[in-house]
Amino acid sequence: MVASQPIGVFDSGVGGLTVLGALHAELPHERFIYLGDTARLPYGTKSHDTVVRYAQQAADALIGRGVKALVVACNTASSVALPSLRERYGELPVVGVVEPGATAALAATRSGCIAVIGTEATVRGGAYQRAIVQRRPDASVIALACQLFVALAEEGWTRGEVARATAQRYLEPLFGPAQEPSGSARPDTLVLGCTHFPVLRAVIREVVGEQVSIVDSAATTARAVHALLRARGLLHANEAALGAQSGEPAWSRFLATDGVPRFAAIGGRFLGRDIDRQEVELIDL
Amino acid sequence: MVASQPIGVFDSGVGGLTVLGALHAELPHERFIYLGDTARLPYGTKSHDTVVRYAQQAADALIGRGVKALVVACNTASSVALPSLRERYGELPVVGVVEPGATAALAATRSGCIAVIGTEATVRGGAYQRAIVQRRPDASVIALACQLFVALAEEGWTRGEVARATAQRYLEPLFGPAQEPSGSARPDTLVLGCTHFPVLRAVIREVVGEQVSIVDSAATTARAVHALLRARGLLHANEAALGAQSGEPAWSRFLATDGVPRFAAIGGRFLGRDIDRQEVELIDL
Repeated sequence: MVASQPIGVFDSGVGGLTVLGALHAELPHERFIYLGDTARLPYGTKSHDTVVRYAQQAADALIGRGVKALVVACNTASSVALPSLRERYGELPVVGVVEPGATAALAATRSGCIAVIGTEATVRGGAYQRAIVQRRPDASVIALACQLFVALAEEGWTRGEVARATAQRYLEPLFGPAQEPSGSARPDTLVLGCTHFPVLRAVIREVVGEQVSIVDSAATTARAVHALLRARGLLHANEAALGAQSGEPAWSRFLATDGVPRFAAIGGRFLGRDIDRQEVELIDL
Repeated sequence: MVASQPIGVFDSGVGGLTVLGALHAELPHERFIYLGDTARLPYGTKSHDTVVRYAQQAADALIGRGVKALVVACNTASSVALPSLRERYGELPVVGVVEPGATAALAATRSGCIAVIGTEATVRGGAYQRAIVQRRPDASVIALACQLFVALAEEGWTRGEVARATAQRYLEPLFGPAQEPSGSARPDTLVLGCTHFPVLRAVIREVVGEQVSIVDSAATTARAVHALLRARGLLHANEAALGAQSGEPAWSRFLATDGVPRFAAIGGRFLGRDIDRQEVELIDL
């Protein structure tokens, strides 16, 4: 690996673009190749073995394009496939979103009672639960699958009655007024354990209230990538020079396994800037 | 093909089990092999070429198990891949759900103004629109993608506030009171153009009102299969004898490409009877 190579980022679809946005903000002089496995999304309802196999194929494709590090910007794949990816690629720095998310949650919680919401596979995989308890053995973690949030985020229904009612139905049993009397079991921190969920932050905030810390792993993952690249001497050598010439948004390229027009149309919602179809290349895994 | 062979039914996942239920009611003496391509669902957000390729692989797997007819119990695959499947398999009877759905809609409508709701791919593919207008050239068809209904059906949230608010948001622009003044454009018939949607019929009914005919293609597809098998001499030869011994519900077997426990758990909701894990075989396509 050399510092001038790009960083590979992959997700099952477009949700990981929230992580790519944070990576670009944290590392504005780096170049990124983002792969969305849109033909086979969602990973969140698939079995362990299938997620591992798909994650390896996606990672292979990025490594074939010469990346110096791999960011698994998908909670399901991070939760399920990270150990096998690290074993497979040896020296290559591989960063998932679960460990940074757990670190952020532990920095935010006072009581040690943390709720994690994610896809079915992320919750079933238990990686957040393990990552939190390994770091703080007296923490208690409540994990809840909120599968419908994924569909809401993709549909762009991030505000309004449907989003609010969905958030209430999932989260009021944990955070609603009815929980107040019992007291101690109410989490003080909520981890958005799916890259789709940050776009629903406002309605989630309405339901959980102002006192709960809402944590997503995008920013902490970006910081973890920054720290790891620095430690390995892989930060882009000529940051200032590269930054100076970057008048255009050529800091990332996109690969998708299906539906380029849909990727471009929906992806902008997660990345925070428009994506042109011409920027997205269709590949087969 | 011989009459004693089973009938193959396939769908991208569990939604097609609503069609399997109707087939069993219509043809209680037949045996069925149902394939849910759960590893690669949903088809509804995928491109044309990908849906065609997946549909062929699923059909090949069923034909490899010796079926005498193929029912494409998936609106997206019917809408996109039926011509290529018919070409590929020559003499084998292949029935999709779109043509029966169009026939049912035309039998129900008085005004000729028909709304079709389905996945993004079904709507984009335009097969319902074509099937209806070919049969009645003066019909007008309004097609609307209701992607979130799929997630609601899979989550089992078929009643309550979220389902109602979602139905309102999608359907009130077409059927709501605000449409009344303009008059003529209001459809009098609504086709549930996705096999997931029949489980949401009650909330859809609440929004569209009692005057609108709600049509789903499960029952009409089952009748079309019955008629085609009779015409080809492929109805099970010994109906009465087989019926007499069928004390057990061994009329169907299930294949899934991923997530057998999830298939069994969620599938029962669509089939109308519980599915035991032992009845589901995991296969790779």
